[in-house]
Amino acid sequence: MIVVMKPGCEESDVRHVVELVQQMGLKEHVIVGTDRTVVAAIGDKRSVDKGAIETAPMVDRIVPILAPYKVASKEIQQDPSSVLIAPGAVIGGARIGVIAGPCSVEDEGLLLEIAHAVKAEGAIGLRGGAFKPRTNPYSFQGMGETGLKYLAKAREATGLAVVTEIMSIDQVDMVSEYADVLQIGTRNMHNFNLLVAAGRTNKPILLKRGWSATLDEFLLAAEYIMNEGNKNVVLCERGIRTHEEYVRNTLPLAIIPAVKRESHLPIIIDPSQGTGHAYMVPSMSLASIAAGADGLIIEVHQDPEHAMTDGAQSITPEVFAKLMQDTRRVAEAVGRTA
Amino acid sequence: MIVVMKPGCEESDVRHVVELVQQMGLKEHVIVGTDRTVVAAIGDKRSVDKGAIETAPMVDRIVPILAPYKVASKEIQQDPSSVLIAPGAVIGGARIGVIAGPCSVEDEGLLLEIAHAVKAEGAIGLRGGAFKPRTNPYSFQGMGETGLKYLAKAREATGLAVVTEIMSIDQVDMVSEYADVLQIGTRNMHNFNLLVAAGRTNKPILLKRGWSATLDEFLLAAEYIMNEGNKNVVLCERGIRTHEEYVRNTLPLAIIPAVKRESHLPIIIDPSQGTGHAYMVPSMSLASIAAGADGLIIEVHQDPEHAMTDGAQSITPEVFAKLMQDTRRVAEAVGRTA
Amino acid sequence: MIVVMKPGCEESDVRHVVELVQQMGLKEHVIVGTDRTVVAAIGDKRSVDKGAIETAPMVDRIVPILAPYKVASKEIQQDPSSVLIAPGAVIGGARIGVIAGPCSVEDEGLLLEIAHAVKAEGAIGLRGGAFKPRTNPYSFQGMGETGLKYLAKAREATGLAVVTEIMSIDQVDMVSEYADVLQIGTRNMHNFNLLVAAGRTNKPILLKRGWSATLDEFLLAAEYIMNEGNKNVVLCERGIRTHEEYVRNTLPLAIIPAVKRESHLPIIIDPSQGTGHAYMVPSMSLASIAAGADGLIIEVHQDPEHAMTDGAQSITPEVFAKLMQDTRRVAEAVGRTA
Amino acid sequence: MIVVMKPGCEESDVRHVVELVQQMGLKEHVIVGTDRTVVAAIGDKRSVDKGAIETAPMVDRIVPILAPYKVASKEIQQDPSSVLIAPGAVIGGARIGVIAGPCSVEDEGLLLEIAHAVKAEGAIGLRGGAFKPRTNPYSFQGMGETGLKYLAKAREATGLAVVTEIMSIDQVDMVSEYADVLQIGTRNMHNFNLLVAAGRTNKPILLKRGWSATLDEFLLAAEYIMNEGNKNVVLCERGIRTHEEYVRNTLPLAIIPAVKRESHLPIIIDPSQGTGHAYMVPSMSLASIAAGADGLIIEVHQDPEHAMTDGAQSITPEVFAKLMQDTRRVAEAVGRTA
Repeated sequence: MIVVMKPGCEESDVRHVVELVQQMGLKEHVIVGTDRTVVAAIGDKRSVDKGAIETAPMVDRIVPILAPYKVASKEIQQDPSSVLIAPGAVIGGARIGVIAGPCSVEDEGLLLEIAHAVKAEGAIGLRGGAFKPRTNPYSFQGMGETGLKYLAKAREATGLAVVTEIMSIDQVDMVSEYADVLQIGTRNMHNFNLLVAAGRTNKPILLKRGWSATLDEFLLAAEYIMNEGNKNVVLCERGIRTHEEYVRNTLPLAIIPAVKRESHLPIIIDPSQGTGHAYMVPSMSLASIAAGADGLIIEVHQDPEHAMTDGAQSITPEVFAKLMQDTRRVAEAVGRTA
Repeated sequence: MIVVMKPGCEESDVRHVVELVQQMGLKEHVIVGTDRTVVAAIGDKRSVDKGAIETAPMVDRIVPILAPYKVASKEIQQDPSSVLIAPGAVIGGARIGVIAGPCSVEDEGLLLEIAHAVKAEGAIGLRGGAFKPRTNPYSFQGMGETGLKYLAKAREATGLAVVTEIMSIDQVDMVSEYADVLQIGTRNMHNFNLLVAAGRTNKPILLKRGWSATLDEFLLAAEYIMNEGNKNVVLCERGIRTHEEYVRNTLPLAIIPAVKRESHLPIIIDPSQGTGHAYMVPSMSLASIAAGADGLIIEVHQDPEHAMTDGAQSITPEVFAKLMQDTRRVAEAVGRTA
Repeated sequence: MIVVMKPGCEESDVRHVVELVQQMGLKEHVIVGTDRTVVAAIGDKRSVDKGAIETAPMVDRIVPILAPYKVASKEIQQDPSSVLIAPGAVIGGARIGVIAGPCSVEDEGLLLEIAHAVKAEGAIGLRGGAFKPRTNPYSFQGMGETGLKYLAKAREATGLAVVTEIMSIDQVDMVSEYADVLQIGTRNMHNFNLLVAAGRTNKPILLKRGWSATLDEFLLAAEYIMNEGNKNVVLCERGIRTHEEYVRNTLPLAIIPAVKRESHLPIIIDPSQGTGHAYMVPSMSLASIAAGADGLIIEVHQDPEHAMTDGAQSITPEVFAKLMQDTRRVAEAVGRTA
Repeated sequence: MIVVMKPGCEESDVRHVVELVQQMGLKEHVIVGTDRTVVAAIGDKRSVDKGAIETAPMVDRIVPILAPYKVASKEIQQDPSSVLIAPGAVIGGARIGVIAGPCSVEDEGLLLEIAHAVKAEGAIGLRGGAFKPRTNPYSFQGMGETGLKYLAKAREATGLAVVTEIMSIDQVDMVSEYADVLQIGTRNMHNFNLLVAAGRTNKPILLKRGWSATLDEFLLAAEYIMNEGNKNVVLCERGIRTHEEYVRNTLPLAIIPAVKRESHLPIIIDPSQGTGHAYMVPSMSLASIAAGADGLIIEVHQDPEHAMTDGAQSITPEVFAKLMQDTRRVAEAVGRTA
């Protein structure tokens, strides 16, 4: 941490800051510059609230130096992690892992049909919500355990790994019975109790970035899970809130090289949530692969016009089939497979 | 809802949209304009996913007309609501209600001292976190039930209403035993299971806006609570995420007139979280009152430099005392009391 | 500047950074921490592109320490500046300065009527656009010099200072003939040639913040003007672009205490542009005064429904009259006059 | 335009809105819904300020239906435009057009060296700023006409089209003498006088999106240029301002399919400005091509550590060479060439 003093500070102000730094168990280092004095505080105390020093007299601001996360960081592990989500199905590594399926589980037959269709095109996971976080209390809230059973049947039929969302700590056990991967959605990235509960399972966790989370916060959410002993975290970018109006969310693909620089965890992209419009899904999927993503999670529905949720951003199995061919070509162009 | 067709659409495209509208149980109204055709869909179907029509051929976009919330809206109740948080302590109405106290409960004696201090200046509620949502898993996570006990003791000693946060559904019962008001924090505004659980208690709920929530989403979160039968919701603005760097959050005070126009619920402001810097708290508190806020929730600590959490934005009891005097003057200037 | 090295850097990497620092004419100071090494660079070289060091091997990032502006800063002048905009009319100091008038000059008679009305209520300046920056090339672009003549006539009739916008360097001379204050709009805050041209006049400059400018960029724009010799700069906040949808812009009033902390320049608020809705203008005006603003600039029109520009955010003379009374009361409550 | 009335409006309120609509020369269409009445206004009056109706009694809000731009839109021209920037050098069409070069022209020899290097790898244009828009008045402001002369010499030597920025109307003639393409930077996208001046030249214009402009505003800026008779506009996305902190700007690649849907103009991407970090430039370049961009504009410098401007985001000729090979592979994978 660097404490920047205001211009015109007295020696006593600096001495006071030095005391505060020492009380935190850190070692100080005072640098008197031309216009400014700064106090560098040395030591690894990630748990202390360093911001409090900001209120000391003549302190201008505090600049943190250390990344606040550890086990998710490259400082701990240089080599990229990969996460096994089902026998033979891996996220991370040379092969692009594609998860596809409907936004919500709506019907057993429809689900099976989509599962077979996406499996045929090379998907390794089947997505589908049984518990749905809906902004509107009057909207369809998901089929619950019945939906989970349909998902499990679809796995039996296709061998696809089942990826489905947990919204609350009381769903973790039940969903774990049926699912291969527990998804934590964007609205729950800061639901720390849920992160801890997920960290206590032995299931791979698909962690979506909060729609206005910083990169540090995203990696700290992963750290919450990993800190409980579960290292099988797959990061997922699904778009952020900005002033843009031609998309539901702005998809910031530069997070891919940023995550690769800071963390060993794999990262996949959700171009469906990440744009909100079906017509953008193919181009943003290819862009994600070209940018270095380890996979995709895509909403696919036979009849988007009648989908119960997220119809506007669901692509049809036909569009998905074409997309998978294109994905393979782009993957090869960047030295990977799909 | 208005369905805007693309230029050049055929009659058959319009007919297809009309069918989709009718299948939703809505009545259509086709308007052929100079450049564009639009299909207006009439009827009150808040539960249908209307966005799905966007994927129909030659549809340009969907414009919703109805507000998605109901019981929180002025359409249901024109007169402003007020919420009783303790005997004689009301949020909403002519008198400004001020809630103050430390970010976290850290110590029984310190808490009592602050409670007496803020009570003496006219606060009606005591804030203090026992369960703390911390971005960093290595940070202090709160004292838990011990903290709740200290809060309850402070209420006995001062008569202040205890306002404290619930982070997870499994805390609702325990916190309800000790607290007068259950706070749902910004990170949990979209934690729908928690909203439902809060709606099933008979405690007033202090609902903080998500830091990138829209106004509609904010009122829908209130609707989740109210829909379970609990009408005692106090809205709280605590700042949003923007590109600004001189604040931790941007405090958008225009939400006060906006909420007053759309909803009957009272709204208070958190200038501590809403700026992140103690030096801004007094001016933003006065601005909030001038803009028509029904109250304030303020972080106060005897020794911000050593506070365990949020020291940077905590004001001292001395600053608080002066602020309360100023608050009273501004409140009178806008025809209210404090 | 602080250069933060990546974990695992070699001594040679640090030595290379030290050389780069020295080549910039700065003095280095190496601090070896527990996890990280940082190189502090001491000296006042505001003109060097320090970011370039980021590309050196094993450099993690660069943290600037010095504020990049000087003459606008409190380091140069502790006491608040005030700007005389017309005989007896000052922005800055105990009295709140209010500038009011139509968005655009539309008609001589209407303008005179508004000018008399706002003067009667205590305004010290008359706003009105003759050159209008319009997003749409097909929209009304302003009356040009004819509009300026009407403004000058209104000044003669009322004694109000004329405040009007310059959009381009070729307008500066002509507008200077008629106006008392040259306004630089939000879209031109980064039009550096225009800032320089404004700095070479002897007219007070009303500088609006760019709608996504940082505070540093805002003060640097003022610095561009002041650097040419013109110290009479009035800052104006007019709202920023965010994800919020119930306003046209989010009005971040915390910039008032931030500017007061960093700069000696006066700051006024534009609640009309700052919200986009007439119904919000009174409450946001009062909030601005309570927060410590030195003045307001408000759009007033007799017949907003038929205004040629910005009708949606224009208040009527009647609403303005009531607002001025309220403004006076709030100003007194915070120890000022209006 | 759709005028949405508030719930509870009277027939007289609707009649008043109908009159306002008729006064605008539009035809009304009243639809009485279950909860809301809306008035649809039919006709093509892009020049009227329709927002003014918002202030009429019992009006809730105004929803525009027509896109505000015309000549830039697909309604006027379905087929994609292509822009010839030099003999044999086209932006738009099957071949990806790459423009590369230093941020600023610093030195004749260095410039020539870079020009030869990027030409050898397949670039068709040479970028380089002679007039630099600098946030800080104390920073290097560019070499001016001398820089332009060096650029012209580099063109002679290599055949590359010269792309350089105009910042102000008084530079248009001089820059036009030397340059092949006039660039309008992000800070000037809303400098309407400059757009008009650019529209009156016969040079191709590279128009960068304002860093917080909407898509409509971006296309309207193009419309300003095209409306003066110059149809040779190349759009360029260079990143937007958001809350993200691991990038200098967030690069929203979904604007590529959005522009392709709304406009016939070609669009290229600036991954250097669009991220702010050299290490992200390769992956974001490839992502842009995969997403359907028509070209790239990239900052290349032999010695980024000593670049006078933007060193942090400049790649070396070696990195550029490798990137061009990868670009070709990804271009082929999506059915294009580079």
